[in-house]
Amino acid sequence: MSDKKIGFAVIGYGGMGNWHTRKVRDEMGEYAELIGIYDIDPKRRSVAEENGIKAYSSREELLSDDRIDLVTVATPNDVHKEIAIAALRAGKNVISEKPVTLNSEELEEIIAVAEETGKLFTVHQNRRWDEDYLTMKKLFDEDTLGKVFRIESRVQGSRGVPGDWRNRPEHGGGMVLDWGIHLLDQALMMTLPRKLKTVYAELTNVTNENCDDGFRTTLIFDDGLSFYVEVTTSNFIELPLWYMLGENGTAAVTDWNCGGKIVMVSDWENRDAVPIVAGAGITKTMAPRTDDTIETFPLPVQKADWGEYYKNIFKHLRGEEDIIVTHNQQRRLMRLVEAIFESGKTNKVVEFEDII
Amino acid sequence: MSDKKIGFAVIGYGGMGNWHTRKVRDEMGEYAELIGIYDIDPKRRSVAEENGIKAYSSREELLSDDRIDLVTVATPNDVHKEIAIAALRAGKNVISEKPVTLNSEELEEIIAVAEETGKLFTVHQNRRWDEDYLTMKKLFDEDTLGKVFRIESRVQGSRGVPGDWRNRPEHGGGMVLDWGIHLLDQALMMTLPRKLKTVYAELTNVTNENCDDGFRTTLIFDDGLSFYVEVTTSNFIELPLWYMLGENGTAAVTDWNCGGKIVMVSDWENRDAVPIVAGAGITKTMAPRTDDTIETFPLPVQKADWGEYYKNIFKHLRGEEDIIVTHNQQRRLMRLVEAIFESGKTNKVVEFEDII
Repeated sequence: MSDKKIGFAVIGYGGMGNWHTRKVRDEMGEYAELIGIYDIDPKRRSVAEENGIKAYSSREELLSDDRIDLVTVATPNDVHKEIAIAALRAGKNVISEKPVTLNSEELEEIIAVAEETGKLFTVHQNRRWDEDYLTMKKLFDEDTLGKVFRIESRVQGSRGVPGDWRNRPEHGGGMVLDWGIHLLDQALMMTLPRKLKTVYAELTNVTNENCDDGFRTTLIFDDGLSFYVEVTTSNFIELPLWYMLGENGTAAVTDWNCGGKIVMVSDWENRDAVPIVAGAGITKTMAPRTDDTIETFPLPVQKADWGEYYKNIFKHLRGEEDIIVTHNQQRRLMRLVEAIFESGKTNKVVEFEDII
Repeated sequence: MSDKKIGFAVIGYGGMGNWHTRKVRDEMGEYAELIGIYDIDPKRRSVAEENGIKAYSSREELLSDDRIDLVTVATPNDVHKEIAIAALRAGKNVISEKPVTLNSEELEEIIAVAEETGKLFTVHQNRRWDEDYLTMKKLFDEDTLGKVFRIESRVQGSRGVPGDWRNRPEHGGGMVLDWGIHLLDQALMMTLPRKLKTVYAELTNVTNENCDDGFRTTLIFDDGLSFYVEVTTSNFIELPLWYMLGENGTAAVTDWNCGGKIVMVSDWENRDAVPIVAGAGITKTMAPRTDDTIETFPLPVQKADWGEYYKNIFKHLRGEEDIIVTHNQQRRLMRLVEAIFESGKTNKVVEFEDII
């Protein structure tokens, strides 16, 4: 396959579908050729044509075009499975938008067809290339803060859940399956090879009753690491995106441009303090450190390009690289999603049987 | 009793004992007279004498002085019970420093003696007069942010647990019993008359193995309110002391001087947004609000003086006021402490049988 460009198509030409076509057409010309799209909505097909992209008149027509090797499915979440299976059976390699399915069972159905047909099936986990995530991952991997015992990852908005299909449980709406699937994937990837032991979660329904408009979850790993993940949508003041505690220091990322800092202790033994007045009492324990015992550093900001995601797909299809987003990673992620729903609904800690 | 000044003494003349004597001597002269102190350490007794305060040579000598009506116990936590009971049996009214005891059983023993002797027994919950707490309580009580569904209360230090008795479990050390007892009391008082339903907690042992050097707990109340309380001691970057989410706005207190703000939505219907680039993707849901749909307000800072705590004691002893810090409040608090230890040790959600 390495001499021929990979024929690429997208099913579902909404916001993300448009994003995928532009990425491949504008930046992946070395590897691939954008052949066309299909969308169930004639208006979206017209928009594609206006953008100079061929719009097939039916899904079948697209899937029967032999020039197409790879299809990205960017539809609402509840039809990922049906379309992915149809595309695999038509001999296409398939990328699904996230969340791959609404539950593990559906995911296993797709994986079975992928194994049967020998075609690639993977998921668009683009946020493994988030620079904030990679920056924190570097600190974690390199023990910059000393042994890390707590990580907090938050995305907080203030607009509730969008009013379209993302607000409908039958279409796979809600924040666990939307932003959650990104932050939870990051949490599972960052902490490898630790096994996840328990999950405690709260689901919120502040702005709507249909499906969750946010969640908070505490993940405890087998070495005791505590990883908190929050996605909420009624927050008019934002807490840091990342907050990481190590034995010798703390790091925080405060915005999408990797603003933030690291503060490290430079003199641990110098713990004693003059008591301060704090509210209606005095405290030595909570007296802020003086500058002579701490040091502030900039974050080691990691640059990344999510085009690497598509490059990996194309190189994999040319036999040059292992695939980055694997079936088993998606299995773990969907099981974690299910554990979060279970914990949130029962208000109990869920024991997680990890399959790492 | 109203014509005579109340005779006041302190047992345990460490940091807090000194604080109590100064408060009463310098500010409560209208109601009370500081008679003296006792400390097991001769050096501390000398310090008292240098400060112009009579130091009794034994606890028995202090307790047998008829001029003393009220004794504050400011010793390490594990001897509160023994001393409180001895003082009650000697006919004294008693204030115990917090935590009142190490567990509910010990508390019930003291309460039984207080009821038997008919003397006052109460606890120094001075942080009910914290201005940050009272400011947030006002917002909560008045529904300023709309219906509040989540409150977060944090105190974060970076010095670990102090190396003295506060580091020894047999003396009632650890952060749950130290700062925890304050923030948990505030949480229980603020949310009245809600019943607490469940407790999930994590205990930390970052800087020492002897006893907890911090904890995080999620309290779920009978109306669904979620109240998160954290006391941690390895944090070199601090999150806000208070963070409160209501349906229409968010409030945060960022320092002990009640710095912070309120941000309220002014136009809920105007939810739609232009997608922003956030990391390796785009988002409408998490696009920050534009200034035309939100409004920022200062916090309604509440002024308070914890001298009100002692005034209430003295007025109560004169028959003029009900006591503010009651036996049953302390029962709830100690049961919550026990639930936190149980949840932290078992990593399970503990069902709380509230006795409100």
